[in-house]
Amino acid sequence: MIKEGDVVTLWIDPKRVYLIKVKPGKKFSTDKGAIELDKIIGLEYGSEVSLSTGHKGYLLQPSLVDIYNGLRRPSQVLYPKDIAYMIYTSGIKPGDTVLEAGTGSGFLTISLAYYLGEKGKVITYDVREDMQEIAKKNVEYLNLSNRVVFKLKDIRTGFDETNVDAVFLDMPDPWNAAKAAYEALKPSGTVVVFVPTTNQIEKTAIALKNNNFIDIHAEELIIREYQLKENAIRPKNIGVIHTGYIIRGRKSLKSGS
Amino acid sequence: MIKEGDVVTLWIDPKRVYLIKVKPGKKFSTDKGAIELDKIIGLEYGSEVSLSTGHKGYLLQPSLVDIYNGLRRPSQVLYPKDIAYMIYTSGIKPGDTVLEAGTGSGFLTISLAYYLGEKGKVITYDVREDMQEIAKKNVEYLNLSNRVVFKLKDIRTGFDETNVDAVFLDMPDPWNAAKAAYEALKPSGTVVVFVPTTNQIEKTAIALKNNNFIDIHAEELIIREYQLKENAIRPKNIGVIHTGYIIRGRKSLKSGS
Amino acid sequence: MIKEGDVVTLWIDPKRVYLIKVKPGKKFSTDKGAIELDKIIGLEYGSEVSLSTGHKGYLLQPSLVDIYNGLRRPSQVLYPKDIAYMIYTSGIKPGDTVLEAGTGSGFLTISLAYYLGEKGKVITYDVREDMQEIAKKNVEYLNLSNRVVFKLKDIRTGFDETNVDAVFLDMPDPWNAAKAAYEALKPSGTVVVFVPTTNQIEKTAIALKNNNFIDIHAEELIIREYQLKENAIRPKNIGVIHTGYIIRGRKSLKSGS
Amino acid sequence: MIKEGDVVTLWIDPKRVYLIKVKPGKKFSTDKGAIELDKIIGLEYGSEVSLSTGHKGYLLQPSLVDIYNGLRRPSQVLYPKDIAYMIYTSGIKPGDTVLEAGTGSGFLTISLAYYLGEKGKVITYDVREDMQEIAKKNVEYLNLSNRVVFKLKDIRTGFDETNVDAVFLDMPDPWNAAKAAYEALKPSGTVVVFVPTTNQIEKTAIALKNNNFIDIHAEELIIREYQLKENAIRPKNIGVIHTGYIIRGRKSLKSGS
Repeated sequence: MIKEGDVVTLWIDPKRVYLIKVKPGKKFSTDKGAIELDKIIGLEYGSEVSLSTGHKGYLLQPSLVDIYNGLRRPSQVLYPKDIAYMIYTSGIKPGDTVLEAGTGSGFLTISLAYYLGEKGKVITYDVREDMQEIAKKNVEYLNLSNRVVFKLKDIRTGFDETNVDAVFLDMPDPWNAAKAAYEALKPSGTVVVFVPTTNQIEKTAIALKNNNFIDIHAEELIIREYQLKENAIRPKNIGVIHTGYIIRGRKSLKSGS
Repeated sequence: MIKEGDVVTLWIDPKRVYLIKVKPGKKFSTDKGAIELDKIIGLEYGSEVSLSTGHKGYLLQPSLVDIYNGLRRPSQVLYPKDIAYMIYTSGIKPGDTVLEAGTGSGFLTISLAYYLGEKGKVITYDVREDMQEIAKKNVEYLNLSNRVVFKLKDIRTGFDETNVDAVFLDMPDPWNAAKAAYEALKPSGTVVVFVPTTNQIEKTAIALKNNNFIDIHAEELIIREYQLKENAIRPKNIGVIHTGYIIRGRKSLKSGS
Repeated sequence: MIKEGDVVTLWIDPKRVYLIKVKPGKKFSTDKGAIELDKIIGLEYGSEVSLSTGHKGYLLQPSLVDIYNGLRRPSQVLYPKDIAYMIYTSGIKPGDTVLEAGTGSGFLTISLAYYLGEKGKVITYDVREDMQEIAKKNVEYLNLSNRVVFKLKDIRTGFDETNVDAVFLDMPDPWNAAKAAYEALKPSGTVVVFVPTTNQIEKTAIALKNNNFIDIHAEELIIREYQLKENAIRPKNIGVIHTGYIIRGRKSLKSGS
Repeated sequence: MIKEGDVVTLWIDPKRVYLIKVKPGKKFSTDKGAIELDKIIGLEYGSEVSLSTGHKGYLLQPSLVDIYNGLRRPSQVLYPKDIAYMIYTSGIKPGDTVLEAGTGSGFLTISLAYYLGEKGKVITYDVREDMQEIAKKNVEYLNLSNRVVFKLKDIRTGFDETNVDAVFLDMPDPWNAAKAAYEALKPSGTVVVFVPTTNQIEKTAIALKNNNFIDIHAEELIIREYQLKENAIRPKNIGVIHTGYIIRGRKSLKSGS
């Protein structure tokens, strides 16, 4: 049941999908009509609602894809396809503690907090206070603040934590953070790195190897969405053809290291 | 610390990655040498070990990718890239209850159980008892039995459950299960379907639409792993170029439905 | 040496590439400055020229890619990546005679005429006179009229020609032209078909098989252009992720057919 | 009509496609039966023939794809998808003269000779005599010797020719041949380079730019063949996911150069 303070997805049609924070007395407007938020409190998720114009909409529990589309983000954020694979291959599970650098607009932060659940913890670092303020607001908006710790610090000189379950790096020079990631991780823990260029793949892979990471892999994912018109199934013509590369490695306790 | 009954990954080199169940008195052999399991009990994850031949290996906590590679699977299983995205876009979170059909070799089952955590529940259906026995053994092997319920039933006539958080379909004719999925889901819940052919995309998308699902998307993911040789960064030449398509939709409470 | 009537490529920078027909007394203007065409007559191809603003440009012999970018085209035309592969796999060689339906804006027509050389012949059919008029102007503009014959006719009832070297089909329902293609081709000749959807692949492949074509293949090509910034090599982010599928088959003389 | 000395494609089924040189008195054997070559002389291309076992086969004019599959090649050769695009974007036309380095097994050589027609000329360089002997035999086998000149020389110190229409480079360090390519090309002529790694893209692009090439592009093509089973259209599962990158540039006459 929808209650005050919830974040709700209003789905009108494929091009009109909105995130709404439910506050009494407020109204949410779209080019297809408005909806008074008082009226949706107490409704069941999935419900059909009529906008002021008579158009229909549906109230849904926000998925991470809705959040991806609806989030305030001054900088480019990681794509769902990449985050999904980064989380899956990181070996993390509900209740774990993970590190992230940099915070950016906070979409990976939110995805991690979502996955780790109520007992999980994301400690996220950035060097830019202005960016982290936006991420903080995004996390608060989604009622996830109790799972996230924000820190302003250049982690290339070291994280504050040790023995964490995984480290996620989305920064320009992750090779300069390989040592810091190694020291912060529990043995057997995974570092997952996202980089946009092939030059960064090379530098990152070398740095991970030199810092006693093993099982190092670099992969890229290409996604194509299909047009679902009857008798005319095909991928959409124009879209994102490149985001970046995902590199991961696991901390080994090499003898002599 | 590694203890009796744990499943451990033995990583020797990129081509030699093994899952081992730690049982006292047993020995695990590879073409690079053997390891006595008594000797690894009590070691820290991440530790380096010497095989009988002097070769080195590393003991790691099994990731889902290790499990994917090491699992007993007479039938083709879903790929990590696809499962990662199916889970991410399904909207599920720790503690949720989800349905799956069919069970197959149980790799999606295991991935779901892993993600949902200790309080989560996967109820998985299949029509083939022989297959489900293998999946059952795989789930037991990984100590996840308390999160999984196995059922032998053709779910095209309906699931036993209602109000579940998500439904995952990996079966030849998912369009015949669209109604069953709708009835089993909580409002706003997501059905996620995997199919190998474009003809199945079309039939599934139509069936979902006709059964009051909204926000229907079909996507495919192409993955390329990169060779990490210094000064020679490039994708590997030969590999999997197609697995299948992921279709999802969300249960709406359409008026009149 | 550039002479009156030639079509020349003016290359200023990657985003400013123009086709120019060299006519005396004319001026060609761009947002980076203008050039008087009288002044370029007699220059060598490859020459650097100064625009009215002082900006530099280069005069090049038009490649088919320049023509692709510079052509007048009210309808979508086939992409260079697809045409290249269609021609290569068609088995045609200089001096051959080929059929095409439909003409569209004439870019495949032009590519074929270019490849077949002075002794080659492209006979191109369309049902829309307005479209073919545009194609005719494009062919004339490029001084290729003596290699192309335009016909207004619905070829689903049959081409006028027989014993041609190859048939190219870029039309909504190529399966309805399979018989016509078979009858027009020389034995062992190739039909090459372009279709945007997977449903069309299926119908076309069946029709080719039913009409005694053998060696039937359907393929798609995905292209990614790379950003060539030093130390930041990566594919461009946004672009065309789908154009269509290329299907080909060869005419066999099956006994009993 | 098939005559002595012709090279013919024998197509039995999708997995049995053979190149045969028609010599009197010879027999060609396959696991589906044999065919006596005397009996096919005088037959029409496209004809159905019965093998010694009663199986049927078809006699076709060899396409470049047949040649790709049937050629003797100790080293990896360029793929049809890449050659098609390299030729298309090179701006060459029937009758042109082009340079190639290195020769390798000669499949690009053959493709170029095929396209340039009877009046065209391919001058191909290699440093390895043993490889070039194989290429020479392949060219002779296909009756294309009069269009090809073979030279043993390290072209990094310069080609023998000037004013050629295009230069094709398939060698480990094409950046060391950029100057040689520039000097050999006619102004406005195109150099086309194939490299397998991203590191080579970078070095090649820089070298081309430093040697007054303009209009520099790097692209990769991913191909997927589709399974044509009715009601089960999908890409084949396993295949080639990477071959290499195609880089091209055009010779400009920059002032001061």
